[in-house]
Amino acid sequence: MMSDEAVVAAMVATETAWLAALADAGVAPAAVDLSGLVGPEDVAGLAAAAEAGGNPVIPLVALLRERAGNDWVHRGLTSQDVLDTALVLCARAVLGRLRAETDAQVAALTDLARRHRDTVMAGRSLTRWAVPTTFGLKAATWLTGVLDAADDLAALTLPAQFGGAAGTLAGPAELARSPAAALDLAARAAAELGLPAAPPWHTARAPVTRFGDALVRCTDAYGRIANDVLVLSRPEIGELDEPAVPGRGGSSAIPQKTNPVLSVLIRRTALAAPALAAQLHLAAAEVVDERPDGAWHVEWPTLQLLGRRTVVAAAQATELVTGLQVHADRMAATAGAAAQQLLAERRALGGADDGDPWAYLGAAGELVDAVLDRAARR
Amino acid sequence: MMSDEAVVAAMVATETAWLAALADAGVAPAAVDLSGLVGPEDVAGLAAAAEAGGNPVIPLVALLRERAGNDWVHRGLTSQDVLDTALVLCARAVLGRLRAETDAQVAALTDLARRHRDTVMAGRSLTRWAVPTTFGLKAATWLTGVLDAADDLAALTLPAQFGGAAGTLAGPAELARSPAAALDLAARAAAELGLPAAPPWHTARAPVTRFGDALVRCTDAYGRIANDVLVLSRPEIGELDEPAVPGRGGSSAIPQKTNPVLSVLIRRTALAAPALAAQLHLAAAEVVDERPDGAWHVEWPTLQLLGRRTVVAAAQATELVTGLQVHADRMAATAGAAAQQLLAERRALGGADDGDPWAYLGAAGELVDAVLDRAARR
Amino acid sequence: MMSDEAVVAAMVATETAWLAALADAGVAPAAVDLSGLVGPEDVAGLAAAAEAGGNPVIPLVALLRERAGNDWVHRGLTSQDVLDTALVLCARAVLGRLRAETDAQVAALTDLARRHRDTVMAGRSLTRWAVPTTFGLKAATWLTGVLDAADDLAALTLPAQFGGAAGTLAGPAELARSPAAALDLAARAAAELGLPAAPPWHTARAPVTRFGDALVRCTDAYGRIANDVLVLSRPEIGELDEPAVPGRGGSSAIPQKTNPVLSVLIRRTALAAPALAAQLHLAAAEVVDERPDGAWHVEWPTLQLLGRRTVVAAAQATELVTGLQVHADRMAATAGAAAQQLLAERRALGGADDGDPWAYLGAAGELVDAVLDRAARR
Amino acid sequence: MMSDEAVVAAMVATETAWLAALADAGVAPAAVDLSGLVGPEDVAGLAAAAEAGGNPVIPLVALLRERAGNDWVHRGLTSQDVLDTALVLCARAVLGRLRAETDAQVAALTDLARRHRDTVMAGRSLTRWAVPTTFGLKAATWLTGVLDAADDLAALTLPAQFGGAAGTLAGPAELARSPAAALDLAARAAAELGLPAAPPWHTARAPVTRFGDALVRCTDAYGRIANDVLVLSRPEIGELDEPAVPGRGGSSAIPQKTNPVLSVLIRRTALAAPALAAQLHLAAAEVVDERPDGAWHVEWPTLQLLGRRTVVAAAQATELVTGLQVHADRMAATAGAAAQQLLAERRALGGADDGDPWAYLGAAGELVDAVLDRAARR
Repeated sequence: MMSDEAVVAAMVATETAWLAALADAGVAPAAVDLSGLVGPEDVAGLAAAAEAGGNPVIPLVALLRERAGNDWVHRGLTSQDVLDTALVLCARAVLGRLRAETDAQVAALTDLARRHRDTVMAGRSLTRWAVPTTFGLKAATWLTGVLDAADDLAALTLPAQFGGAAGTLAGPAELARSPAAALDLAARAAAELGLPAAPPWHTARAPVTRFGDALVRCTDAYGRIANDVLVLSRPEIGELDEPAVPGRGGSSAIPQKTNPVLSVLIRRTALAAPALAAQLHLAAAEVVDERPDGAWHVEWPTLQLLGRRTVVAAAQATELVTGLQVHADRMAATAGAAAQQLLAERRALGGADDGDPWAYLGAAGELVDAVLDRAARR
Repeated sequence: MMSDEAVVAAMVATETAWLAALADAGVAPAAVDLSGLVGPEDVAGLAAAAEAGGNPVIPLVALLRERAGNDWVHRGLTSQDVLDTALVLCARAVLGRLRAETDAQVAALTDLARRHRDTVMAGRSLTRWAVPTTFGLKAATWLTGVLDAADDLAALTLPAQFGGAAGTLAGPAELARSPAAALDLAARAAAELGLPAAPPWHTARAPVTRFGDALVRCTDAYGRIANDVLVLSRPEIGELDEPAVPGRGGSSAIPQKTNPVLSVLIRRTALAAPALAAQLHLAAAEVVDERPDGAWHVEWPTLQLLGRRTVVAAAQATELVTGLQVHADRMAATAGAAAQQLLAERRALGGADDGDPWAYLGAAGELVDAVLDRAARR
Repeated sequence: MMSDEAVVAAMVATETAWLAALADAGVAPAAVDLSGLVGPEDVAGLAAAAEAGGNPVIPLVALLRERAGNDWVHRGLTSQDVLDTALVLCARAVLGRLRAETDAQVAALTDLARRHRDTVMAGRSLTRWAVPTTFGLKAATWLTGVLDAADDLAALTLPAQFGGAAGTLAGPAELARSPAAALDLAARAAAELGLPAAPPWHTARAPVTRFGDALVRCTDAYGRIANDVLVLSRPEIGELDEPAVPGRGGSSAIPQKTNPVLSVLIRRTALAAPALAAQLHLAAAEVVDERPDGAWHVEWPTLQLLGRRTVVAAAQATELVTGLQVHADRMAATAGAAAQQLLAERRALGGADDGDPWAYLGAAGELVDAVLDRAARR
Repeated sequence: MMSDEAVVAAMVATETAWLAALADAGVAPAAVDLSGLVGPEDVAGLAAAAEAGGNPVIPLVALLRERAGNDWVHRGLTSQDVLDTALVLCARAVLGRLRAETDAQVAALTDLARRHRDTVMAGRSLTRWAVPTTFGLKAATWLTGVLDAADDLAALTLPAQFGGAAGTLAGPAELARSPAAALDLAARAAAELGLPAAPPWHTARAPVTRFGDALVRCTDAYGRIANDVLVLSRPEIGELDEPAVPGRGGSSAIPQKTNPVLSVLIRRTALAAPALAAQLHLAAAEVVDERPDGAWHVEWPTLQLLGRRTVVAAAQATELVTGLQVHADRMAATAGAAAQQLLAERRALGGADDGDPWAYLGAAGELVDAVLDRAARR
């Protein structure tokens, strides 16, 4: 979805849409579908040639013009138009996938929160016993994280980029004979791709940084879940376990060992993602001139890496929460054994102390219900 | 606004609001205004004592209870309730200030974009001549960055935090005798502070990361402006200059030298801010248990630093864009001298080449108008 | 040590040393000790005035010249000479303190590793039982981390900075009448401060980035220890505990709760430090011209923050490892109970399986001895 | 060098070396060269299978055992032994290449500094005229950055990793019948690979963070050069130009435009590299237990990315400094035209002012000589 192959295909789609817009407007003689002309086998060559020009658009355009026998390809555009729009197309695919994954996560977490609304467990604070809680409330809080991230995904706008060499649409206006016609060309090409049109954003990069921030909001939410699973599935604690899947989590040295692989891999992504989104902000802050001298170039691999990793982590998180094993008996046993400490606050507040953690759950149930309501209203 | 003194005052305000809610609900005997009891002179002592408890709330509560002679202070709360809510209060003040600054920036940039709608200048791409553009379009693109950031500031919600030791509201429910009454207490205390109520977000940190992301969107926008000013005010280029203020920009070694101090200081902040927002994400991703073991503690100084720096950069950006000196004659001269290169694309597209950069501005004016419309519609 | 007050005092010391060098060389009439002329009460004013000039040296020089009645102050220098050298002086103090702390840590960890050379415990991998190990080997591995960091601290060179307005020593050469005399002035001033002389490094920032990297190597080592303490002191595991200090680790809500405060605060620093060192690298990579336009300005607060936090974390780490409570009986009990899993590898390798974790420790003892040897040879 | 294919090949080499050590010691029946058994065509399958086990070693071992018909493969090792050692082998190749590139850079920069020892140019500070300098001194300062980085590369030690499931060498000791024999096995396997032996460093990650830091020291040095080239080759300044290579630096829109592609791409890497090295520190700081639960997994792709990008940037930097076009006449003309400002400091110090920038170069020549001496002494 964010592979080099996918980006190249999206660049070809962008050039095709532009050609269609030129033809629609009567500027170019005819629309041509370029989509079959460049394939995965060309990617290595394009990557090598990209070194000379500083970006892959220049050799791609040469290839397309030659293979299509059509000099109208790319006329009026600049490299950044094509690469930005292509990355937006890939980002749209990532978003689609993430929305599907968050839907599945919301469903699974809703189920966990509802089923365990009254499953008591020890609440832990700074690694120590705090007061009793329920696993339902823990799952509801995980759900809050996912819902927050899903809200941000839903709010994203990913516009097309058609601005020409310095964002003035001078080339398109020359071809189409007026500024208004140039704006119309850009709107048509965006519509071809199903993307919203927008003024050129070569040097105003909020579409990129917002995308990055929303993705990290996802990995934050997943990392937070994975951390709990890693702690609570430690053998001494044993309150949770990852889904049991034959062949997963094996060790190269120790037979019968089952590593919490999903959580480990999610955690890996969650640790690394914030710095990737920060790169996108740094790139945005380093922009200069009408098109920048390196800051833009930072974005491409960062977007690819962040997009790919977030999708993988989302799939792992879905699998994790969908098949999570909850050992309610162990939770109850631990809460019971720790009742003395878990009820210390209650005693200090002058409350009854019958040694029963179930009697000191506060508004845990009501809080679960509030989150379930929010999830149901989506 | 984000100083240690301000955070302490906000913590006192939070404890006061909670006490008022307890009194309103008939739980505590009376509301007490704690605001005079702890002052800037206590901050150093609290900071030192914070080392022992791991956070400043513990010694603060001891001080307030002693000085107010009131043991109801803080009853039912946990440290994180007080510190999170206090930081939210400080963040609200930051937001207020940032909104005022962005309003001023929008006004100044609107003026620049409108006045220079037809001021031609060389467009630059990868440091080289591209095609002609206008300074109005450059200012409009700066304005787009500020408007994007302002939209994100406007969309932020900063909720109060009242959750008790493990986010179950068990303490408040014990005091108020029911879960519903506990939720009501939390809502009253939030209302006292003028903050929205929300389910406890001890471990779901989107309110924090969204705040950080929005602030960096501001510094991204400012950094992008500063970079242009730094380049375009180089003596060899001379198209822009910082506002001339007596006593500003002097050198310790060279008389008459005028350093572009505002831009340099903005750039400093813009380079450093992305990593600060990333710390907030990392903290969010590292949460575990009902209250985390270090991840939360990362947030406080990071929020203070990011908040303070963004406000300073915003004020500097306002000053910069309000008093910016635009040398339209120099822009015209350079564009004229570079006409041959600036019109290379036009010639390649088969356009007329009369050596006039003014004739190849594409839709620059229309694009300026679109951004001005957007700004006017706010 | 890295406070604003300390930096101002170090700037005054730098100006004093330069004045002494000028006097020694017969350029200025007399050396003057400026050290009493500016105090902590001036810091706020200097910070405010620094905004206008972009750095605090400009107003400081004005103050010193006025109060000393001596126009020779700062002659031939540039702001960066003074601020870089001052930060180096502060960094030297930080290094001194860190070396003392690492010495104490090495002593404490040596003691732990030696005493627990044969204290068996469960080895854990990806949170699961692996094979048996000893607490002595764990402490020895912590020690390796500290020794690695200490080696890097020991290897650091922190040179003085005296280069003049563009790093050519033109001003000093003008004053001292020859290039050789200018180099001699710089060497004298450095010697006054007990610092090595070096060619101007205004734009070659390895001294700064190496310092940052070495400090993060320290916080990496401390974070790694804190993580183990946080996990192993969880109530369900109970193999370690932080030093018991009356009044430390209390909770604002729950009586008798003891939070692992040292580890939590160390972990906070360890999570945040890598991004600070990365800022120093970013600043180094963003240098341009003979003195840069913002990149240098990023360094000051970052160095202060990183220096201060590392010293605090070092002190906390010393306290943690010096007073660490090791529950060898609990370790033995857990290893015994988990023997079946801990010996799975042995069985798979065809080894005897007498259910005794003590019999499968491999070279743990020898590895401890090797680290102890390394520590002893320092 | 850091591709997935290279890492797989290095893992196979590691398993081969271990098998050889087992055979040498009389533990396994015979050494087998595994190097032909797994090839590039297996990489995609291994990557997919790695998801299930959490790392690629598990499926690789299965493949090697099956294809070699040899169950001794990997006996006594853990996944981390193989992957760490393999990454060290790849890192060694990266280092070899970087050393060759820095040698070439040192040669080219030495030549530039020597040839332009007396080429006067305007010194620039905070983008403004400062005092005169020489291009030779600028090149010498670039050279200092490269020499500093080269020193750090030269100081690196990259040890083999052979520790077994929890770093105790229990498995090897079981196979070899004694702790001493286990240590000997590890030493033999390291020697097979030409790597230094070391105690297991599964959880003490200085070898990794030092490697990352040294690589970023390289990209810092290259970024600093690229920034100068980007500024000084702007058309209004024109003092430098990138090497002219037919076909390089073209634009997709504008004929005859020549983009400074090498500098742009170097700058891209320099902006992104600090955050990558910070990830390695974060991973080191997040280690827990005998082998960590995600922190280790962060390292692999980060090392690959950082290694690959640094090598590419190094090659680009070599090409840049080797073929750099220096326009000494333009430098002289600009310095002459700006003489009034460039000599302001001299006038303020009471020096002669004959309007001649050549007369105010301070110790520039001597400083060049000092750096050339340092380079020559390597």
